[in-house]
Amino acid sequence: MSNSKIGLYYKNVMADIIGSEHGITSQQMDDLAKETAPLISKLNAERNEGKTPYRDLPYKTEISQDVQDLASRFEEECENLVVLGIGGSALGSIALQTALNPYMYNLDSVQREGPRLFVFDNVDPQQFGSFLDWTSDKLEKTVFNVISKSGRTSETAAQFMIVCQMLSDILGAESLRDHVVATTDAKKGTLRTITDELRLRCLEVPDGVGGRFSVLSAVGLFSAAMCGIDIDLLLEGARDMDKRVSDTNFSQNPAAINAAIQHHFYNRGKNISVMMPYCYALKDLCDWYRQLWAESLGKEVNLKGEKVFVGPTPVKALGTTDQHSQVQLYREGPNDKLFTFLQVDNFDKDIEISPAPDCAPELGFLAGANLSRLLNSEKAATEYALLQSKRPCLTVHFDKVDAYSVGQFIYLYEVTTSFAGALFDINPYDQPAVELGKEATFALMGHPDYQDLAAKIQPVNNIDEKFMV
Amino acid sequence: MSNSKIGLYYKNVMADIIGSEHGITSQQMDDLAKETAPLISKLNAERNEGKTPYRDLPYKTEISQDVQDLASRFEEECENLVVLGIGGSALGSIALQTALNPYMYNLDSVQREGPRLFVFDNVDPQQFGSFLDWTSDKLEKTVFNVISKSGRTSETAAQFMIVCQMLSDILGAESLRDHVVATTDAKKGTLRTITDELRLRCLEVPDGVGGRFSVLSAVGLFSAAMCGIDIDLLLEGARDMDKRVSDTNFSQNPAAINAAIQHHFYNRGKNISVMMPYCYALKDLCDWYRQLWAESLGKEVNLKGEKVFVGPTPVKALGTTDQHSQVQLYREGPNDKLFTFLQVDNFDKDIEISPAPDCAPELGFLAGANLSRLLNSEKAATEYALLQSKRPCLTVHFDKVDAYSVGQFIYLYEVTTSFAGALFDINPYDQPAVELGKEATFALMGHPDYQDLAAKIQPVNNIDEKFMV
Repeated sequence: MSNSKIGLYYKNVMADIIGSEHGITSQQMDDLAKETAPLISKLNAERNEGKTPYRDLPYKTEISQDVQDLASRFEEECENLVVLGIGGSALGSIALQTALNPYMYNLDSVQREGPRLFVFDNVDPQQFGSFLDWTSDKLEKTVFNVISKSGRTSETAAQFMIVCQMLSDILGAESLRDHVVATTDAKKGTLRTITDELRLRCLEVPDGVGGRFSVLSAVGLFSAAMCGIDIDLLLEGARDMDKRVSDTNFSQNPAAINAAIQHHFYNRGKNISVMMPYCYALKDLCDWYRQLWAESLGKEVNLKGEKVFVGPTPVKALGTTDQHSQVQLYREGPNDKLFTFLQVDNFDKDIEISPAPDCAPELGFLAGANLSRLLNSEKAATEYALLQSKRPCLTVHFDKVDAYSVGQFIYLYEVTTSFAGALFDINPYDQPAVELGKEATFALMGHPDYQDLAAKIQPVNNIDEKFMV
Repeated sequence: MSNSKIGLYYKNVMADIIGSEHGITSQQMDDLAKETAPLISKLNAERNEGKTPYRDLPYKTEISQDVQDLASRFEEECENLVVLGIGGSALGSIALQTALNPYMYNLDSVQREGPRLFVFDNVDPQQFGSFLDWTSDKLEKTVFNVISKSGRTSETAAQFMIVCQMLSDILGAESLRDHVVATTDAKKGTLRTITDELRLRCLEVPDGVGGRFSVLSAVGLFSAAMCGIDIDLLLEGARDMDKRVSDTNFSQNPAAINAAIQHHFYNRGKNISVMMPYCYALKDLCDWYRQLWAESLGKEVNLKGEKVFVGPTPVKALGTTDQHSQVQLYREGPNDKLFTFLQVDNFDKDIEISPAPDCAPELGFLAGANLSRLLNSEKAATEYALLQSKRPCLTVHFDKVDAYSVGQFIYLYEVTTSFAGALFDINPYDQPAVELGKEATFALMGHPDYQDLAAKIQPVNNIDEKFMV
């Protein structure tokens, strides 16, 4: 149990702070409440009808038990865990690891309590090759977790075929059983067939849950459990947030308020939504959010079948780093952004700034303060500067960063996405536009079923030297 | 010498490909040429008058000599190099390292020919603390390169004060001379004073070159040289690109064409500029570009003194990873983006995809192909899908990724930024909006000179519980 509650602070989007040209007046906020409140009951009803199974993942204690049982089998002998997956099969694992384990985890055996973790969500031959060179003499102590609902995702399939061959060549074909965990559909699909045929250890990708909503299933939990993260506490955080985001009182519901504000500003021409944590550990939650937000809300057609071409563009920034990169634009560029800061009130570890050299008394004001105070002062200063430029700012406050607060955050943003989908009047759970690119890849890789498409792509793919400079 | 030339391919922004509602017609391209061509002579003249000293950095062979001389002093005994800097003092170092050294460089002593490299561009106590815990018993073999023009950047100053104390405590005050390299102003400023007082080894931040244009000075070159990167070849690439971007023939000048296209689409409502490399090694060049583009072009006031609030928002994406995260939005969301792919035609290292398991013949089409073919097919497929959705796409082609091509790329984008600044009619070399945040940080840290400001910030900084949910 933990009481590290997170909270959404939204005063700094209000007209009282940044003026009515860019801020939300009290009247507008009342209108947002009226528009959004009925959606809370609607989403609760959909959830009760089983239409949004991601909502129930935090209650599936049997999943976390399976995950932990499997993880404990590897406890002794695994020194390197390698996740092969992409999109929703990778971003949750990366986010949890960065959030909840030390920065030097992979490099410092003293600071880690599980295997090193590598997540490969790409097919770059130099990157993957560099890793395979390193790992080839460490395979005895390496476990690969291949994650794909269907097994037909080209990137993951290619990686997996290479890894299986390497394991067979070096450790023998029988080694796959001890060195591969397949996370895939319970019943059907290519990876399920392979898993059954090769009798691989496996976990399930739950039915009806899109990749981007799957982090609280075995998809995200296995690597977390292997690396010593308290997945029960993570799920407890999500369950506790579930109570808050199911509250039919709009003014008490952080997901409804967050979605209403995001949707409102999008309609006022702010097509960019920046998430900017002032905490290194939270930075990869932004990439998880980028997928959740972009793939769920970027839609051509609404539920009435009308062409709408909507969707805010999520942008990742990091404080203080990006103050020295993006804040000039954020303050003086077009007022086309809504900012969401993530702020941590208590850091587990702190460092006192040492005295200034005698010859530089101008640095004396820093001496004796903790780095966390400097970091949070930079956040307050940046927010102040943005407010002076009339830019709307939200803050998600973390009492501290632990599995409990991260579980809350994940669930808050998942349900915020459902609310935003309802406000945009689109289906937030599909991704129809991804299909053409997948088919075009099949075509260009010579797949016999897609040769008509290959003929169509070729003219676009050929270089016309007239336009090369 | 290398002949790995880079080229800008722009056919897929043309109306012939994506239609005239979102594409550029031949007539419009002619107009862009007329508008932009005179700026080439103007920029060349400014450069000859010494107004853009960054343009001359690739010719300063004495700098690269100094850098290499200093690097060679540490060759034997340095196992860890730590850069302390932020913004332009960090992003170039990170970009060069990711681009030109192996993915597993820090973890695999076999794959590296220099010290491990760590760049700290933040003041997160957990992140920095995790590193200090690891490094505290390795200080004998650790060198810190502190980079700041003035020495008054709070983040870098705080880090440096902590590190100096740690070195003094563990290795003795005299150790600073052997474990610190200060890169700072040649004559004035806080870090210059400290450097002289403590007789630290030092390198120069050149005069008149903003941080974001400084990667080809000692700022970016020292860590690169230490880590075995061929900095002479990097500068040669930049010099060879200089010839191309100085060409007064618009149709032969990739920087002028790139800037003209970027500016044109911004004015047609595409306020987001996405850079999406299909190569892991190039990914951190996107963060370098994000600063260059955002801080240079995000401006409230134009050269006539009129309020304009302009500036495209640069966004980093990575192929194929972000196909499974952002491409749904990129195809179906609002047509508010210009895409720039980075494509590598030849990878130094490649991996053949192994045979599919017998039970999964549907994966057979992948077997036997190289990963680089899959990666580039994914790029072509994604571009094809975007073009079907009428989204404009540029591609920067790299024959291969080496110091020569990366040097070209850096110089191309620096000069593109100068052209874009001229087209937007703003000053691309200042960053006036950053100042208020710096002063507000001083105020919140209790600096005696800024207490009036602290009083103004306090009301914004206090939590109003009514808006916390």
